Amino acid sequence: MAHDHAAPKPVTLYAPITQAEVEAAHTAWCGALVAIATENDTKGQPAAKELAKKVLDSAYGYGMGPVLFKPTLTVVPQTFRTTYDGALAYFVGGDKAYPNDTGFALKGWRKCETSNNTILITGNSALSMGNVTMWDSKGNVTKVDKTWGYARGTDGGLKIVLHHSSLPYSAK
Amino acid sequence: MAHDHAAPKPVTLYAPITQAEVEAAHTAWCGALVAIATENDTKGQPAAKELAKKVLDSAYGYGMGPVLFKPTLTVVPQTFRTTYDGALAYFVGGDKAYPNDTGFALKGWRKCETSNNTILITGNSALSMGNVTMWDSKGNVTKVDKTWGYARGTDGGLKIVLHHSSLPYSAK
Amino acid sequence: MAHDHAAPKPVTLYAPITQAEVEAAHTAWCGALVAIATENDTKGQPAAKELAKKVLDSAYGYGMGPVLFKPTLTVVPQTFRTTYDGALAYFVGGDKAYPNDTGFALKGWRKCETSNNTILITGNSALSMGNVTMWDSKGNVTKVDKTWGYARGTDGGLKIVLHHSSLPYSAK
Amino acid sequence: MAHDHAAPKPVTLYAPITQAEVEAAHTAWCGALVAIATENDTKGQPAAKELAKKVLDSAYGYGMGPVLFKPTLTVVPQTFRTTYDGALAYFVGGDKAYPNDTGFALKGWRKCETSNNTILITGNSALSMGNVTMWDSKGNVTKVDKTWGYARGTDGGLKIVLHHSSLPYSAK
Repeated sequence: MAHDHAAPKPVTLYAPITQAEVEAAHTAWCGALVAIATENDTKGQPAAKELAKKVLDSAYGYGMGPVLFKPTLTVVPQTFRTTYDGALAYFVGGDKAYPNDTGFALKGWRKCETSNNTILITGNSALSMGNVTMWDSKGNVTKVDKTWGYARGTDGGLKIVLHHSSLPYSAK
Repeated sequence: MAHDHAAPKPVTLYAPITQAEVEAAHTAWCGALVAIATENDTKGQPAAKELAKKVLDSAYGYGMGPVLFKPTLTVVPQTFRTTYDGALAYFVGGDKAYPNDTGFALKGWRKCETSNNTILITGNSALSMGNVTMWDSKGNVTKVDKTWGYARGTDGGLKIVLHHSSLPYSAK
Repeated sequence: MAHDHAAPKPVTLYAPITQAEVEAAHTAWCGALVAIATENDTKGQPAAKELAKKVLDSAYGYGMGPVLFKPTLTVVPQTFRTTYDGALAYFVGGDKAYPNDTGFALKGWRKCETSNNTILITGNSALSMGNVTMWDSKGNVTKVDKTWGYARGTDGGLKIVLHHSSLPYSAK
Repeated sequence: MAHDHAAPKPVTLYAPITQAEVEAAHTAWCGALVAIATENDTKGQPAAKELAKKVLDSAYGYGMGPVLFKPTLTVVPQTFRTTYDGALAYFVGGDKAYPNDTGFALKGWRKCETSNNTILITGNSALSMGNVTMWDSKGNVTKVDKTWGYARGTDGGLKIVLHHSSLPYSAK
């Protein structure tokens, strides 16, 4: 009614995270990776970088403080990317402050799937562990061990506050 | 730096609520009650109502869903005020939909104190119980038993999601 | 299997509280009140007190610290019953330290129902507000405004950490 | 007093996890690794296994459900060790069900340190990311990228519910 002040869709920040929300976040992450790679191949790195910024804003919790992010291919002394800039450099490269970054999201990804995830809902946060498999335009397949941690952002949606990715161990 | 995207002051919604935050919320509630009453006495009910709206927006969690609000003086069938309109009517009256409401915040309050509160921090929510004592412009004193529950809002500040107020029991 | 160490039924303390758990806690509280009253009428106060202890141990969070408990009929300076002893005295009386307590649970209750509850699940805690209606052996009815707050105990079950009960307001 | 039923030290399961608790858990994990390795070298694997069981019981959350555990050296199809048995086999080996496990905790560790950890307290859970450096009896050094997630157990202490460990990436 006219003077009803309540928002049409309340942002219930205290609502426990659900399994469905975590699964949707997994699907969205894979979709974003392929979208950024495709943007790069069709429109170039600057366009891919703009899209990557949108993805980081909506999917990661950098607006809430440091994000515990250990990407698959980073090396010392820049292994951990707790800042927005460090994450952006990892995904799309082109940042002199991160000379080793060539842009993980620019590697021609065309398909991405998550699997074998076990999900723990710990109240107002949630954790998942499993694999992410990615196929590039040449048909090469990369499979990584993946851990994600989520908390709600100001829009009520899940934000990644923890991301540990690593290549499977192989005995020499 | 120029392309650092992190907010100057991050809104860390997942941060546990602190005792200091709860005590500040108590002080703010008392201050708002006196401010609304003073606004009414100096500028009239419409001005008091505008101020009450600001207070409800900043201090209560109606933007996050229903608020568990049992005001001191409400009666059946409108005892519980889970909506923004029901809360506004209770504090400043003037709403035909709530004919019994004369406006609790319009009763000439000049001083308000909280006391004897025990505070429980339950992770991302917090609970408090104790008394609120209010003095009006004629020196009359009203003391109520008060319970509040808090959760973080989208601005990172505490919002009241539970408010149970009652007059002390007195054997007939 | 022999050396499988995992508990048959894990106590997942971090699991968000569910609406069903809160509703079950409401039903259990009413059932316990009637059981204590009936125990008193059939076996006497000592038996009722033993049963009340069991109820407090299983249903309230005194083992986790102070409980924010404002019973319906307490008066200053013993309005708030944050300790186990204060709660036990309220329910079954007979404690010199609480001279005004005649034992709320000893008033011949034969039926108890909760209604009109709004439940908020705030992650690892939960809040409810509504009414509790109680009928005694003479058919007298008592209806109170009731707020409960819950958190998980060491057994994984819900424990009451907040309990504010008050008689409905009536204008003189 | 005599009939005071409250526990001497309440187990406040709902209390938010503190940074100090997480740091203590890091120190305890390192201490346990060295203790198990030393037990193995001085008393043999069976003694080390008994100690490892005690460590798993006190430090990991297997009693609360599956633990998201991706050890440093596991391989498909047994990469993830969500069960107590899988974790025990990884640390001390000797389990036919896990033929590739030689016992990570049996590798002669004499010193262990955590570093560069960023800690996020997400209410009733906590997350940390950084490095763990381990020195064996021959002076060999192993440094891994380490993520831990914690929640409270029934004893009120932190339990590891998430553990992702990986060797640093090195470009071929």
